[in-house]
Amino acid sequence: MGASLALAVRGHYAHITGVARRAETAHEALARGIVDAATTSLEEGVAGADMVILATPVRTIITQLGDLAGAAKAGAIITDLGSTKSEIVRAMNRLPDSLRAVGSHPMCGKEVTGLDAADADLYRNKTWILTRSTRTDDAALAAVKTLAEHAGAVTLELDPARHDMLVAFASHLPYALAVALVTAADQAGLNDPALWQVTASGFRDTSRVAASDVTMMLDILLTNANAVTGAIRDFQFSLDQLTAMIERKDEAGLRAYLAGAATTRKAHF
Amino acid sequence: MGASLALAVRGHYAHITGVARRAETAHEALARGIVDAATTSLEEGVAGADMVILATPVRTIITQLGDLAGAAKAGAIITDLGSTKSEIVRAMNRLPDSLRAVGSHPMCGKEVTGLDAADADLYRNKTWILTRSTRTDDAALAAVKTLAEHAGAVTLELDPARHDMLVAFASHLPYALAVALVTAADQAGLNDPALWQVTASGFRDTSRVAASDVTMMLDILLTNANAVTGAIRDFQFSLDQLTAMIERKDEAGLRAYLAGAATTRKAHF
Repeated sequence: MGASLALAVRGHYAHITGVARRAETAHEALARGIVDAATTSLEEGVAGADMVILATPVRTIITQLGDLAGAAKAGAIITDLGSTKSEIVRAMNRLPDSLRAVGSHPMCGKEVTGLDAADADLYRNKTWILTRSTRTDDAALAAVKTLAEHAGAVTLELDPARHDMLVAFASHLPYALAVALVTAADQAGLNDPALWQVTASGFRDTSRVAASDVTMMLDILLTNANAVTGAIRDFQFSLDQLTAMIERKDEAGLRAYLAGAATTRKAHF
Repeated sequence: MGASLALAVRGHYAHITGVARRAETAHEALARGIVDAATTSLEEGVAGADMVILATPVRTIITQLGDLAGAAKAGAIITDLGSTKSEIVRAMNRLPDSLRAVGSHPMCGKEVTGLDAADADLYRNKTWILTRSTRTDDAALAAVKTLAEHAGAVTLELDPARHDMLVAFASHLPYALAVALVTAADQAGLNDPALWQVTASGFRDTSRVAASDVTMMLDILLTNANAVTGAIRDFQFSLDQLTAMIERKDEAGLRAYLAGAATTRKAHF
């Protein structure tokens, strides 16, 4: 996400420093010209920066926000690319008064990670959600909005709780279904390995996000547990309705249910 | 499916007659050169044919098998492209001794239908399942296998019950999850329409098959009800495990579960 963003906005900013966990990644990002400078030290990387963008898993972002308190210069704008916002914004609210912070969530990603997957067009035409914290002023919000627009995204402002409820349905629930589907199929495949010979495009697409980065998704589920389990319960109600109609061979009810879903799907995509 | 198959195997057969429900479709298929002749009459279309391929929804195939009893010539090979096999093979078993019949299921399809969606490459490198009936002899099986290979598919022979259990997991369960997901999101979207602004590629891919042809899927669910509800129950067990770990914030358990699903997904796709 971070390398893709650097590629997407280069030319709009005078100097971009990349901070990576591993020295190889830092060297490689510099060698490929993705960034102007690279380091493995967060403190060194953010020193003097006008804007700091945290592109790590959600719970790492929360830890790093604490680290920034003493490392970022006064007036710096802090933002992030994390997929849940309530806990991140709470951590932003705890930053010193001298820092400004805006929660961000670009609605895009890949199930592959690393520099090889970096893509300057990743953000193009995607929705990029902005959430205010108590450390957000209008100029900081505008600066992060401009960042999103330089990357080609379309911004939408939401409060953190509403954001987390909506993405629980739009993003975390599909992920939960994909991993539970793959897990159930894995069990069935132990009984009859021919299962994997008959999977086709339907299974492939429905299960795609199950290959997402585990640490990223673990942090998302743990920092949005209430909204995610709520969305799962609503889904289970829908699936129970469908199952009951199949069991009692309710042809009229099933046709209406399937037609409704097909119409909704076609209306939105 | 039928028009795609005609496009895929033209040149391998001397004469292909298309049978369509609507006269416009028959005219259009002929005008586009998809078939050598076209009619809306099943009886007229199959008269004198060496091979008859039924490419309609499952319950229509079952009805048409009854109609073929008096319409197909002695020795004709009957096959179908239906997505469930037990009920179709039972109907094949009731055909007169003079007819030969082989159940088929090419594991491919599109969520759009009609001649505009016809695609000569639809079957290429896909798994095409063959199921014997009591009306199957080796020559008939070989002829349908050759048909599949002309279309570029790879054949796999399975008995009907095993086929239906496997595709319940591989294909019908993903469909059930997609329609239940879209239905649950539709309800959530009534409370907050911004939901549809934050759906991204994860929701799009996980829900893709919810746009499938309703009559086709209705017939599949109704003719494979036991296997489908069994697969749904196994899935619900997996989802319940996942939900419980999220609720109790079982980080180690969650990480193992998510990592297992990611590994399985990557191993098979």
